[in-house]
Amino acid sequence: MLFAKPLAELIAELEKLPGVGPKSAQRLAYHLLRVPDHEALRLSNSILDAKAKLQFCTRCQNISEAEECEICRDMRRNRTIVCVVGEPRDIVAIERINDYKAQYHVLHGLISPVDNVFPEQLRIRELLERFHHEPIEEIIVATNPTIEGDSTALYLAKLLKPLGIKVTRIAHGMPVGGELDYADSATLMSAIEFRREM
Amino acid sequence: MLFAKPLAELIAELEKLPGVGPKSAQRLAYHLLRVPDHEALRLSNSILDAKAKLQFCTRCQNISEAEECEICRDMRRNRTIVCVVGEPRDIVAIERINDYKAQYHVLHGLISPVDNVFPEQLRIRELLERFHHEPIEEIIVATNPTIEGDSTALYLAKLLKPLGIKVTRIAHGMPVGGELDYADSATLMSAIEFRREM
Repeated sequence: MLFAKPLAELIAELEKLPGVGPKSAQRLAYHLLRVPDHEALRLSNSILDAKAKLQFCTRCQNISEAEECEICRDMRRNRTIVCVVGEPRDIVAIERINDYKAQYHVLHGLISPVDNVFPEQLRIRELLERFHHEPIEEIIVATNPTIEGDSTALYLAKLLKPLGIKVTRIAHGMPVGGELDYADSATLMSAIEFRREM
Repeated sequence: MLFAKPLAELIAELEKLPGVGPKSAQRLAYHLLRVPDHEALRLSNSILDAKAKLQFCTRCQNISEAEECEICRDMRRNRTIVCVVGEPRDIVAIERINDYKAQYHVLHGLISPVDNVFPEQLRIRELLERFHHEPIEEIIVATNPTIEGDSTALYLAKLLKPLGIKVTRIAHGMPVGGELDYADSATLMSAIEFRREM
């Protein structure tokens, strides 16, 4: 015997989480065995609760408690601009700047043929659907500045521009407060490419 | 709004886990929202299951499914030697070498005044209790080779030697396969101190 069965099972389940290896799964399991019952119960319940109460917004595909998410229901937001992101967490990042007040659309992934992720698996059909009901004029593609994010942006541009939609891409450049000296050359190249007249 | 309430609650619960910061808690939460319901349910259940089915062995304080753990119930093991460790996971490490076939005792912590862990909080009383019923002759103190582990070892030696118990400490030295060149000086010093005649 190495681990008692319920412990081995807990470790196995924890190991399935992203970024949790065998060692950290063990550490987490021992931690859960040590904490008071009510604390472990709270974690266990919050998993079920989140699964039961959350769904994807039928409009923008963001995580939502209702059929339509809070952002989509907010009538003060500009309905002509939609910011396309890869994951729900990207919305949280953009909302944090407290300045962008338009719509979103979550693709739930980025095109990545090596990982077997193709356009059909992303929520692009749901995005196209929105053009039928919403006065969308501009799509800001705010996917990550990575090969996958850039390929996805390119794909969307090719798909949407023929429909008369303005497609823009967030700038790739020097992070604010960064030092040129420490920037990698791909970032620097992008910063020069995305330059604008002062 | 940044996160829907059930999501915020799940993130808060995940953040309480050791080594899980705000960013990884978010990543784990989004992962759990993405996986099929039955998978999240399995994790949730395995937490409750482990809490419900596991207890501390009344003899050695290891994690156990029964009142006495498998190791304590194993009659082929040497009952005269008890290896004292800090945490249940240390037993797993020692059992893995497949050679030590005696008893254990888990202290559930190491003496560390800076972290407010004093001898009274460790399961030392339970260890002393065992001398009344078990033919223990030697205690091998296998706590970590750290300040806390060494202080705990020293404390146990002072406590048990007057009772006529042989108290030994695992060797601190060069890891097998390591290179002198890369060893820190504390390890090298210990390796010299623990030297033995060939």
